[in-house]
Amino acid sequence: MLGRLYEGQECAAARTLEVVGERWSLLILRDALFRGYTHFSDFQKSLGIAANILARRLEVSVAAGIMKAVPTSSHPNHWEYVLTEKGQDFKPVVVALTAWGDKWLGLGPAEYVHETCGGIIGQHFHCAQCGADPPPAEVRAQRRQFSPRRP
Amino acid sequence: MLGRLYEGQECAAARTLEVVGERWSLLILRDALFRGYTHFSDFQKSLGIAANILARRLEVSVAAGIMKAVPTSSHPNHWEYVLTEKGQDFKPVVVALTAWGDKWLGLGPAEYVHETCGGIIGQHFHCAQCGADPPPAEVRAQRRQFSPRRP
Repeated sequence: MLGRLYEGQECAAARTLEVVGERWSLLILRDALFRGYTHFSDFQKSLGIAANILARRLEVSVAAGIMKAVPTSSHPNHWEYVLTEKGQDFKPVVVALTAWGDKWLGLGPAEYVHETCGGIIGQHFHCAQCGADPPPAEVRAQRRQFSPRRP
Repeated sequence: MLGRLYEGQECAAARTLEVVGERWSLLILRDALFRGYTHFSDFQKSLGIAANILARRLEVSVAAGIMKAVPTSSHPNHWEYVLTEKGQDFKPVVVALTAWGDKWLGLGPAEYVHETCGGIIGQHFHCAQCGADPPPAEVRAQRRQFSPRRP
């Protein structure tokens, strides 16, 4: 099913890349998340990739539970690829990639907005303890501290 | 230098993947960002990849301006790979990948904390207009609206 690309890597970021680290996977997600695409032909037109590669990537997304294949009501032999909740949850990854590109490679054609008020959406870190939205320089990683079991 | 992996894709997320979409690139960044690694041998030990592949990825990171190669003071023929500001700015991408993996693939071994108070760090969307931190379902993409030039 999914190739073990990052053998021996237990970290959550590495395991996420097992699922979406193959070329085109994140751009298929972008199209599904923010353009609302569900049809094979829409993804193909947007990405301009070979049909066999796209078919394989969609198959892998379904196997990973990121999308589900749903028969279209009008054409019983056609399928639509619909994001699951697990797939919807990739929005922060795509927004973070976009923000980096906008800043360092020049503004791209898309911006993210708040559906209810139309305001521009940014992405921030937030500290659950002191309530600050710290800059990246104040964010560090540590080994997760599991709470001891209750007796 | 960098391969054009996503030919014809002008979006900022796609162009970011041109820079860090090759296998291992984001995990090298993770090690540099959150483990403070700068030496070839530390990356190699952490990732367990072939020396020629790691050398190529570091070379590409330097060419892209994400890292700079600095001679070590103690060994004049050795180099350290130090993140630039452009590289430091990948923290939100790595944190977003980790959050997805923690939620959908099981908790990984690392968590992110606020350096100044030790609190757990989360990542949120924030609306510049209404001040809300909206859920992903309320975030949508639109074509960027450039302000007209001033006369």
